[in-house]
Amino acid sequence: MSSLVRTGISLDSELLARFDRTIAKRGYGSRSEAIRDLVRELAVSTDVAQDKVVVATLTVVYDHHRPKLSEQLIEAQHHYHGKVLATTHIHLDAHNCLEVIIVKGRGSEVQELADHILSLRGVKHGKLVMTTTGKGLK
Amino acid sequence: MSSLVRTGISLDSELLARFDRTIAKRGYGSRSEAIRDLVRELAVSTDVAQDKVVVATLTVVYDHHRPKLSEQLIEAQHHYHGKVLATTHIHLDAHNCLEVIIVKGRGSEVQELADHILSLRGVKHGKLVMTTTGKGLK
Amino acid sequence: MSSLVRTGISLDSELLARFDRTIAKRGYGSRSEAIRDLVRELAVSTDVAQDKVVVATLTVVYDHHRPKLSEQLIEAQHHYHGKVLATTHIHLDAHNCLEVIIVKGRGSEVQELADHILSLRGVKHGKLVMTTTGKGLK
Amino acid sequence: MSSLVRTGISLDSELLARFDRTIAKRGYGSRSEAIRDLVRELAVSTDVAQDKVVVATLTVVYDHHRPKLSEQLIEAQHHYHGKVLATTHIHLDAHNCLEVIIVKGRGSEVQELADHILSLRGVKHGKLVMTTTGKGLK
Repeated sequence: MSSLVRTGISLDSELLARFDRTIAKRGYGSRSEAIRDLVRELAVSTDVAQDKVVVATLTVVYDHHRPKLSEQLIEAQHHYHGKVLATTHIHLDAHNCLEVIIVKGRGSEVQELADHILSLRGVKHGKLVMTTTGKGLK
Repeated sequence: MSSLVRTGISLDSELLARFDRTIAKRGYGSRSEAIRDLVRELAVSTDVAQDKVVVATLTVVYDHHRPKLSEQLIEAQHHYHGKVLATTHIHLDAHNCLEVIIVKGRGSEVQELADHILSLRGVKHGKLVMTTTGKGLK
Repeated sequence: MSSLVRTGISLDSELLARFDRTIAKRGYGSRSEAIRDLVRELAVSTDVAQDKVVVATLTVVYDHHRPKLSEQLIEAQHHYHGKVLATTHIHLDAHNCLEVIIVKGRGSEVQELADHILSLRGVKHGKLVMTTTGKGLK
Repeated sequence: MSSLVRTGISLDSELLARFDRTIAKRGYGSRSEAIRDLVRELAVSTDVAQDKVVVATLTVVYDHHRPKLSEQLIEAQHHYHGKVLATTHIHLDAHNCLEVIIVKGRGSEVQELADHILSLRGVKHGKLVMTTTGKGLK
């Protein structure tokens, strides 16, 4: 069972004062919460480096008038159908679409899906973000 | 009116061979498409550096059992309601939720929204990605 | 005067166990030292975002047989002479040189110097890293 | 033998105009030079992803009054002596030192050296940058 524990850290008073100013500006309610965020960020980047299962979002901007592109995007997602959790589509203007594809899988598999989609003709820009499944990260 | 133009570039034959191998592996159909992607990537990063209007996705993982967190997330998005285009919610497991918030605005405004949401107690991890509105980027 | 102070943070026992494993692997002697590093990393990235004075290193790889390039590199550094602290030069092989240029200045000034040098013909690759002057960071 | 070759790329006229403005601002003399930089940047990031031999610089800021730290830094570099090419040391002020350690090796080995040094007590901040040996990159 996990539980809340307390640990003490020692650091320089000036560094602490500076930390307090920065986290106040960002809206944190307590030092603990801000430090937990730093610790969790380290945990997520370690998971990514070790090719563990992550949740990722691939954000893609494309022109939906481009022939066959919509079909290719759907095919690519079905090919990885075990991994695609959901897709959100936004009509940015008469031409431009934003699609956010949410996937779950090992970092390397997710990267492969992203490489494939980003290489399609008509995709203007795209970015992949890897985050956590949330498990074991309280 | 924009139109398709052709430009020549000169580069070392070994560098070109290496480029061809890399883009073949990533699935590009032509050099032009791969170079257009590099050129567009440069354009997007320039827009972000100049605080122009971007489209961004904020990916957040949180525990929905945390008291008041869902309300705080909704409030934050309403506060920036002119900027939030859509939100997608995924139930990762009994505890963990993934929320992808799609926003449009200047980079600095989008960053402010992200800082606020990421500082909320119960948010385990989050990442912000800025991309393009697609305008002027063919 | 600055002094060493102690602060307590509360976090989940599983998250803490995971943190302990990660930092042991990286060679940290204590939790305090690892958390201080995370806190200082946040301070440095805040300084960069606020365009404060930073110390930076620009790492450049180039072919020293390229006509006039060495002169252009020296000229660029003299133009910013108030900012360049030192330069280290390594002969990687018969053709390739590595030059590490250490500069001090506002982030935006340092970026300008880097943009200028990286655009010179014959520079094969380069990367800029911004760090701290060390002041107020114990 | 490598030689200079010419290849044609087709892209949208507006995108090209935008590219021309950006590279003019950064000081590039020609489109070819700017595109070669993008192509080389892709080659370097591919090498890093495939754990090939890279040249890297580790920039470290530390307090030289910290007992034993200087010895530990020297020891660490000797342990990896086959890989450390040179070290440059700058006295930033009465307390703070900047050290730039230039190393050559596989990305994973270089990362290990960096993790070890960054975990030493008294090291305030550090950043690792991986670049190319220059071979095959004209």
